[in-house]
Amino acid sequence: MGKSEIRYAAKVDLEKDAASQPQLHNRWHPDIPSAGKIADGEVVKIECVDWTGGQIKNDDSADDVKNVDLTKIHYLSGPFEIENAEPGDVLVVEIQDVQPLQDQPWGFTGIFAKENGGGFLDELYPDASKAIWDFEGIFCSSRHIPHVRFPGLIHPGILGCAPSAEILAEWNRREGQLISECSHMARDVAQPPNPTNVHAGAADDTLTKRVGEEGARTIPGRPEHGGNCDIKNLSRGSKVYLPVHVPGAKFSVGDLHFSQGDGEISFCGAIEMAGVITIKFSVMKDGVNHLSLKSPIYIPGAVEPNFGPGRHIYFEGFSVDSEGKQHYLDTTVAYRQTVLRCIEYLRRYGYSDQQIYLLLSCAPVQGHIAGIVDIPNACTTLGLPIDIFDFDIRPEAAIQKLDMGACAVASK
Amino acid sequence: MGKSEIRYAAKVDLEKDAASQPQLHNRWHPDIPSAGKIADGEVVKIECVDWTGGQIKNDDSADDVKNVDLTKIHYLSGPFEIENAEPGDVLVVEIQDVQPLQDQPWGFTGIFAKENGGGFLDELYPDASKAIWDFEGIFCSSRHIPHVRFPGLIHPGILGCAPSAEILAEWNRREGQLISECSHMARDVAQPPNPTNVHAGAADDTLTKRVGEEGARTIPGRPEHGGNCDIKNLSRGSKVYLPVHVPGAKFSVGDLHFSQGDGEISFCGAIEMAGVITIKFSVMKDGVNHLSLKSPIYIPGAVEPNFGPGRHIYFEGFSVDSEGKQHYLDTTVAYRQTVLRCIEYLRRYGYSDQQIYLLLSCAPVQGHIAGIVDIPNACTTLGLPIDIFDFDIRPEAAIQKLDMGACAVASK
Amino acid sequence: MGKSEIRYAAKVDLEKDAASQPQLHNRWHPDIPSAGKIADGEVVKIECVDWTGGQIKNDDSADDVKNVDLTKIHYLSGPFEIENAEPGDVLVVEIQDVQPLQDQPWGFTGIFAKENGGGFLDELYPDASKAIWDFEGIFCSSRHIPHVRFPGLIHPGILGCAPSAEILAEWNRREGQLISECSHMARDVAQPPNPTNVHAGAADDTLTKRVGEEGARTIPGRPEHGGNCDIKNLSRGSKVYLPVHVPGAKFSVGDLHFSQGDGEISFCGAIEMAGVITIKFSVMKDGVNHLSLKSPIYIPGAVEPNFGPGRHIYFEGFSVDSEGKQHYLDTTVAYRQTVLRCIEYLRRYGYSDQQIYLLLSCAPVQGHIAGIVDIPNACTTLGLPIDIFDFDIRPEAAIQKLDMGACAVASK
Amino acid sequence: MGKSEIRYAAKVDLEKDAASQPQLHNRWHPDIPSAGKIADGEVVKIECVDWTGGQIKNDDSADDVKNVDLTKIHYLSGPFEIENAEPGDVLVVEIQDVQPLQDQPWGFTGIFAKENGGGFLDELYPDASKAIWDFEGIFCSSRHIPHVRFPGLIHPGILGCAPSAEILAEWNRREGQLISECSHMARDVAQPPNPTNVHAGAADDTLTKRVGEEGARTIPGRPEHGGNCDIKNLSRGSKVYLPVHVPGAKFSVGDLHFSQGDGEISFCGAIEMAGVITIKFSVMKDGVNHLSLKSPIYIPGAVEPNFGPGRHIYFEGFSVDSEGKQHYLDTTVAYRQTVLRCIEYLRRYGYSDQQIYLLLSCAPVQGHIAGIVDIPNACTTLGLPIDIFDFDIRPEAAIQKLDMGACAVASK
Repeated sequence: MGKSEIRYAAKVDLEKDAASQPQLHNRWHPDIPSAGKIADGEVVKIECVDWTGGQIKNDDSADDVKNVDLTKIHYLSGPFEIENAEPGDVLVVEIQDVQPLQDQPWGFTGIFAKENGGGFLDELYPDASKAIWDFEGIFCSSRHIPHVRFPGLIHPGILGCAPSAEILAEWNRREGQLISECSHMARDVAQPPNPTNVHAGAADDTLTKRVGEEGARTIPGRPEHGGNCDIKNLSRGSKVYLPVHVPGAKFSVGDLHFSQGDGEISFCGAIEMAGVITIKFSVMKDGVNHLSLKSPIYIPGAVEPNFGPGRHIYFEGFSVDSEGKQHYLDTTVAYRQTVLRCIEYLRRYGYSDQQIYLLLSCAPVQGHIAGIVDIPNACTTLGLPIDIFDFDIRPEAAIQKLDMGACAVASK
Repeated sequence: MGKSEIRYAAKVDLEKDAASQPQLHNRWHPDIPSAGKIADGEVVKIECVDWTGGQIKNDDSADDVKNVDLTKIHYLSGPFEIENAEPGDVLVVEIQDVQPLQDQPWGFTGIFAKENGGGFLDELYPDASKAIWDFEGIFCSSRHIPHVRFPGLIHPGILGCAPSAEILAEWNRREGQLISECSHMARDVAQPPNPTNVHAGAADDTLTKRVGEEGARTIPGRPEHGGNCDIKNLSRGSKVYLPVHVPGAKFSVGDLHFSQGDGEISFCGAIEMAGVITIKFSVMKDGVNHLSLKSPIYIPGAVEPNFGPGRHIYFEGFSVDSEGKQHYLDTTVAYRQTVLRCIEYLRRYGYSDQQIYLLLSCAPVQGHIAGIVDIPNACTTLGLPIDIFDFDIRPEAAIQKLDMGACAVASK
Repeated sequence: MGKSEIRYAAKVDLEKDAASQPQLHNRWHPDIPSAGKIADGEVVKIECVDWTGGQIKNDDSADDVKNVDLTKIHYLSGPFEIENAEPGDVLVVEIQDVQPLQDQPWGFTGIFAKENGGGFLDELYPDASKAIWDFEGIFCSSRHIPHVRFPGLIHPGILGCAPSAEILAEWNRREGQLISECSHMARDVAQPPNPTNVHAGAADDTLTKRVGEEGARTIPGRPEHGGNCDIKNLSRGSKVYLPVHVPGAKFSVGDLHFSQGDGEISFCGAIEMAGVITIKFSVMKDGVNHLSLKSPIYIPGAVEPNFGPGRHIYFEGFSVDSEGKQHYLDTTVAYRQTVLRCIEYLRRYGYSDQQIYLLLSCAPVQGHIAGIVDIPNACTTLGLPIDIFDFDIRPEAAIQKLDMGACAVASK
Repeated sequence: MGKSEIRYAAKVDLEKDAASQPQLHNRWHPDIPSAGKIADGEVVKIECVDWTGGQIKNDDSADDVKNVDLTKIHYLSGPFEIENAEPGDVLVVEIQDVQPLQDQPWGFTGIFAKENGGGFLDELYPDASKAIWDFEGIFCSSRHIPHVRFPGLIHPGILGCAPSAEILAEWNRREGQLISECSHMARDVAQPPNPTNVHAGAADDTLTKRVGEEGARTIPGRPEHGGNCDIKNLSRGSKVYLPVHVPGAKFSVGDLHFSQGDGEISFCGAIEMAGVITIKFSVMKDGVNHLSLKSPIYIPGAVEPNFGPGRHIYFEGFSVDSEGKQHYLDTTVAYRQTVLRCIEYLRRYGYSDQQIYLLLSCAPVQGHIAGIVDIPNACTTLGLPIDIFDFDIRPEAAIQKLDMGACAVASK
């Protein structure tokens, strides 16, 4: 015996264009060629680029965020063929570690411009902004949002197995129907397949063209396979149970987050990074039947940050919007109100609303559905950890005047 | 010095009709007479009846649930006048303990009939059902849902200060507008003031009549004062910061829960009980300004059950409904799907859907908003504690056949 | 069905002398008459007096502590006969709740005088002192130690089954041998049987006399049955597995603590109280064999206070005593040094050493054995929760001047 | 801006003899030459060899453990000069990350032979044994101890500032006195300075000779600077406050552990590894006075594994030894008994005593001082996490027969 480093199933080159790297792809499609084989029971490391493929820079301007090309995202690593995996099986994915790339110890959080991506509060905050986060071991801090610092609840935003052709068709059908039904809305409600900037891994031109025409965008998570579920707790030690839809499972992963809050509200809301994930793969034969599994399930690891329940301030919100209009059990409206209550609270310390919006997107805030049956009001809560601040934010504490600087903004 | 028991600000008599007890009331209105004074800084005990005022019995039929009279609910204890509290202040409520009444160590969870109250899943489960829970110290278990047992995260479902006349008018305006806008819907979307069975505490007939005509129903929580927020974590040790709207605050509390899951999905979904709550009251002068407070905030206590993050199975749900229709970032739809995924999982063990529906309503399940920006899919998660079951529910475990009995049902 | 309060297996009368109440006793002996029968599987409530039987008063003098009569202690409730329990079985004791008596919401912590009981630091602090703690729900605070407040980790200091005659003889042999071997030491090293003030429950005079001559004192815990183990985590929800040595088990319990720190260093160091404990008893047949059980084991409950690991300051101590003498892997010396480091730290805030000594005895401090093999130094640590103080005790914080009052002292 | 990897203050070469690498040393002495400068406020990475300098191999024989050369240990990285640090200051060391070296993802736990190092239970288990642990991300498992697997609570066993000449002299005085007083004991009670295999970093021969004659061995932790404190919770996110005794502090670190249990009972008891630690250094001027600091203190990070308090089995032990002899408040005897109780419990599953001894040394077991004042018995507890086993070890579970293999043993 002796030395035996864990095998890399994929590496990335940050100096090269993501679109030129065959182990990456940016659409969901069953026919994207395999990026490699992984044995049942094997542990591998997989490197990932950030979700934009390097479009966002470590600087103090948000012009890159404003002008981000969303036809390119998300660049995922894979798809990997898993030995023994057949449709009807469950692929058990144990996330054994996630780390930033050693030579790129930083990440970014962005508020996307309302006209290019938007986010949960884009009616209020339509302009692009950005915060760069520096990593120091398990901690991160930002020159753009002073006086906060926290350990990352590091995780992949996206993981899942490829859809079958049938599932892909269903996705396109139902999302297309939504788009047509919502044509009166002044905003995108979904993204149909888009051939622009499609990257189908090692596919030839013919296949790439077809993937561009048929392939589902990676933006939404979807019930059949998970995908971009953006669950902040899929961190080190978690096990995820994924339905398999095609032979070999064709597993992909990407959109690594150093940290994220529940809701990932600013859309580019996590601390987005390039990194490496260590995964153990195993196949549960006939698992879909055994587990009655329609959507992924998961079991978190034992090593999440534990601030203590009493070290959070919780904000409450209800489904009455800012104009005083009553909505019927609308949890989305309630959560927006909840977030606004927290912004109003933190604004007292001198932070700009954009800084807070960025912070609540990426810090490990807890977003709970409290009550969802007391007509007409849904009630949600947002738990803000007290100890991520280096000053005392508790209600009883005096309000200190601190220099809160500014987040990166876009030129007009 | 020597003995000094904590003072009771209110006691209840379970042998007498709740409607005849002047320290109780069942509407929100600024003019309901004070049920007693409490000093700034004082600790008192307050007894409460269960929210229905004793309509539900400890037996094996759900006829009482089916026929429950919802015009009577919720019976709250109060309103109490708090020394020094003026509009613009914040009433700080420290929940120092909550206990069931010693001679009534049991509670109930009900699925309300679709035509009389309903609940989150009433389209699927329209019939009344019930589970009785027996308390053994901090634990509860039910003859109607075998093989589960858990410590209670005990808390009040309702607490808040009385609305001012202006706020009350606004509630009636906006909820009335919703009712009129939703007249096409085949269900109640809100409850307007209703004089039937109004109980205005010690009010005389004239005032009672007015409270009946103007007073807000206690069913929804509302942003201005909290009220029926149904936040499961407002347990022992929590501090709640409540805006004061009338002189003396006129604080009321009730709807005590031995335990509840996030969402309280079956509407009568907590383990409802009569009990006693110990509260320390203090007034933060001009607190609404100091805290920029539009809705209550709270800080949980340090003594919640800690099962360990890795001892939960999390279910994922997305805003695609059971008919395959895509909804746009609809968190309510997503949470309904999340709950259904958990029902499908637990059904494998022989539980009826109604048993699971009841269980997920009252056990300390974690309902999180995971992603709310990945158009068109909102993603929510539900965390089910593994250790509330006396058999192994982890995905890898074999499925044992156990006698799961039945919950209480209503006669046809 | 309907109302059904949990049965009391024993009640106490705080107005009457503990020595006159037949359901109490203050020695371990197999022949003390049963105080009642409990069924296998039954849940009962058991009331207990404080360990001294009411010798300590809620006042501001420590004369009662100075003059405490230690021949009387500990008054335990029992012994109870458990149906089906036979020698070789294991009695499974689930602690479902512990509460102070409703009409006595206070407790005490004492530093015993060096010449009457002593404690871990009696060489340094030889004089009697006292702190009275007031209970407000799950919290306690003391007029004698201002600016601290914490939720109780409530538990019984003593629980166990009666020794057999053989085990009792072994206890007397080995402790007698220690006494004779340590006759050169200027202090009591153990307490032999002592007929003075013996209370053998319902025993007649002949039996009482024999119990006085043979019965083991209740002061030490002992490996064969647990007894006065003073484990702070035997709180609500814990299960304890106790070896049975006599037919019917003859279980006793007492010495209830509202809270205690690891080590209970001032001897009367917990927050001692009268109270009621709710226990579910069940018998594991042949459990001693099945579990290879020589001493009790236990599984804590899920609801301990969780301050978060990062909200503790840890002090380190090594087996070099205050005179600079090196001891060989002596954990007791190391822990004494660890405690002294914490006293030196807290002294900076204006607390007296006695106040700190009292506080570290009863607050939920974590005492760990860190290293026990690195010759010649054992290393222990003591974790002090930051959030039990209402001012900031972190190393970086400025030292504020606060009025720290004084603990109760004895007259000279 | 752009890429900026964290600076390495030291690297190691596992292919070369540790004794030949000038940034390593294996004695404590104020005059060992600096291995580099670190700025006040700087974050650096420091690579470390395993404590034996590579003497233990990844194989299935314990001959290497049996024959280990203890004159060489521990190889530490440093000493580093910290800008601004002067005697009387406190060096604040924030441990931002600890990782195994990427190309050596394994570690070892050893039982040292009684005649060459020994351990806490060497009277019972005198022979050398070994377990190799493979790392998979945050998890570890061992072919030598099947059916266990756990996340590492990764930390340095040793960190501290160099002693001044006066402190060094005091160490040698007091440990020398112990050695002379204990000459009747049949075992080493301490290790005096030993020139054999001394490695004084970049020192020339003259200085190396003097360091060999005067330098303190690194085996024990010591109160004045911490050193080999072996505190399992000094993990990621911890802050340690170290007294400074010489200009520049001369900080050293090493003995990295992937995991360790309280006590580290088998001496080479942690999962020993080569690795890299990321540290932020800052100087608290006059900190020794400000903190009244005689020994280091620390604040753990927020990200320890959280199994939940109810997912541990706790074993109790008292200061009565295995021969039935009563000791007076001897915590070391009590902890040995506690460990034996756990061995007896786990032996039922087919593990050898040596496997359990190794496991309890390195798994994150909790060793608590429960009671230390109930004469004559000290009581300690050991908490064993249930969820590190892949079978059910709870008392109620049936005992399954599993293949438990064997740990590595030494040839006779």
